[in-house]
Amino acid sequence: MLAHLHIENSRLGSPLSHAHDEHVRAALIRHKFLADRVRITIGWDGDMLDAALATAQFLIAARPPRDNLSARAPGLRWIQTTGAGIDHLLPLDWLPDDIILTNNSGPHGPKCEEFCLMALLALSARLPTLVDQQRARRWSSIFTQPIAGKTCLVIGYGDIGQAAVRAAKRLGLTAIAVSRSGSGAGSSTGPADRLMPTSALDSVLPEADFVVIAAPLTPQTRDLLSRVRLALLRPTAGLVNVARAPLVDYDAMSDMLRGGRLAGAVIDVQDPEPLPADSPLWDVPNLILTPHISCDDPRYVDMLLDAWAANLTRYLAGETLRNVVDRSRGY
Amino acid sequence: MLAHLHIENSRLGSPLSHAHDEHVRAALIRHKFLADRVRITIGWDGDMLDAALATAQFLIAARPPRDNLSARAPGLRWIQTTGAGIDHLLPLDWLPDDIILTNNSGPHGPKCEEFCLMALLALSARLPTLVDQQRARRWSSIFTQPIAGKTCLVIGYGDIGQAAVRAAKRLGLTAIAVSRSGSGAGSSTGPADRLMPTSALDSVLPEADFVVIAAPLTPQTRDLLSRVRLALLRPTAGLVNVARAPLVDYDAMSDMLRGGRLAGAVIDVQDPEPLPADSPLWDVPNLILTPHISCDDPRYVDMLLDAWAANLTRYLAGETLRNVVDRSRGY
Repeated sequence: MLAHLHIENSRLGSPLSHAHDEHVRAALIRHKFLADRVRITIGWDGDMLDAALATAQFLIAARPPRDNLSARAPGLRWIQTTGAGIDHLLPLDWLPDDIILTNNSGPHGPKCEEFCLMALLALSARLPTLVDQQRARRWSSIFTQPIAGKTCLVIGYGDIGQAAVRAAKRLGLTAIAVSRSGSGAGSSTGPADRLMPTSALDSVLPEADFVVIAAPLTPQTRDLLSRVRLALLRPTAGLVNVARAPLVDYDAMSDMLRGGRLAGAVIDVQDPEPLPADSPLWDVPNLILTPHISCDDPRYVDMLLDAWAANLTRYLAGETLRNVVDRSRGY
Repeated sequence: MLAHLHIENSRLGSPLSHAHDEHVRAALIRHKFLADRVRITIGWDGDMLDAALATAQFLIAARPPRDNLSARAPGLRWIQTTGAGIDHLLPLDWLPDDIILTNNSGPHGPKCEEFCLMALLALSARLPTLVDQQRARRWSSIFTQPIAGKTCLVIGYGDIGQAAVRAAKRLGLTAIAVSRSGSGAGSSTGPADRLMPTSALDSVLPEADFVVIAAPLTPQTRDLLSRVRLALLRPTAGLVNVARAPLVDYDAMSDMLRGGRLAGAVIDVQDPEPLPADSPLWDVPNLILTPHISCDDPRYVDMLLDAWAANLTRYLAGETLRNVVDRSRGY
């Protein structure tokens, strides 16, 4: 008997992560074993959700249903989220013990590495300031030294953080990574020159020419770059955020950018998104805002289904799945 | 007897290229043989020019004197310009046959490579459009595929063009270089995948995802990217100019950027510079303007004096100098 995979789309979320029939048809062609193993249904904003949950073993969803899940989905064994961050699902007290939760960590790496390359070079060249000058019709040269040899601090050392570190190393920077425990996936420093625990953050912030925020948003990381911590940065430093907005005190950052106590910032994540037209953030000087595009590829759903199919092979073989969320850490 | 090197500064030119006493003192420390070989004078805007020319064998100048030079500078044998481009000195009919002219090609490479890395990534990520959206307080995601595998056309294959090709190759692009003769410095393609003569330009422009202008400005290259040639580009293409403004028809480029017939541009050179506040270029959509900073390092004068000292060693040994301007080609 075929297992049942239900894909639940949310129109509230990014269209990039919406799975349509053509995505599924293409995945069935790329992964021929799928047709022998699963039947797939696609729902939108709950239009068929309870009927689907009644029979589904597998669920792919941006925002999985959380109410009374054991009763509504008695056969459900595995939920795959469409995003890498699961901060919007915390705390995980709604998740029955016998359901595995996996996130979509992985496909964001290559694009994120490129975005970080661009953002680091843009900050080094003072592009946020040059763009402001363009708007003010002011031609005033700012000369900067090559970026090689400077120091980049990357906060968070998962999929995104490692991409940021790779970008820094490709530019000849010294890369210091900071993670919760101060140890990497394989307990080595990976591509980073140094790997430190979050507890050492205050001591390394003053060393940084550039800081890239790449940590998951959890109760522990909210306001991680607080006003007090941001004040530890050099006034010549540049800041990049490709993670989640609440990790950084944007009011403090804005004050520093206005006052020349931070040279520039490239910020890809805002709160809320879409950022409202009346947000004061739009006009902050020395700041480039991008609309949450840093780590996303237009082939997003194809890549998600490829990763899910590979994980299904592991599931069917009784192997450990990739990207299983740790319930205690919350990511 | 010591030879006489006169350095003539022009306050009209970029402060970056102004040689001050401290630059000379530092160069004499770095290159100890200089003190035994040359005495060095520094002038500003002609304040001591004719007295200096009367005895100088060597001249370093942004804008060398061109009137009646044989009579005014009977001992002058070698003029070094402070810039890489010498378009402002053309035609070279003022240059006596027994005076060598060298340009300052070389030190621009590392910075230019970084600028091209940034510009290519920015165009790939549609950053010029995203920056426009920021100014309009509009949050609208634009998702783009990774840059690797796309095609970059680099027009001009000297110091700057080769830096642009290296940048393209570092990003995994296919790099097509175009030079006057279609042959490289060592008659190989260098880092480029293909090297074509300028006569093939019309056939390769439609292949390009990105075009980097890196050619010298001569009577032959003026308006090289004319309205007709620009129309050969794909509407999804992006344009970078790190050479000289008159190589490209900016009116045509602006029309195309406004009309969606060119996706974006990063333009580091304008005409005139500084670009006047009332120029229509400032407001063209999908365009990032930078103030002629792409290839310049704040250590510019130090690097110039280092290169000059190395060339002086060759001169004293009777060897061929580097960066000698070809009088017939004009660069």
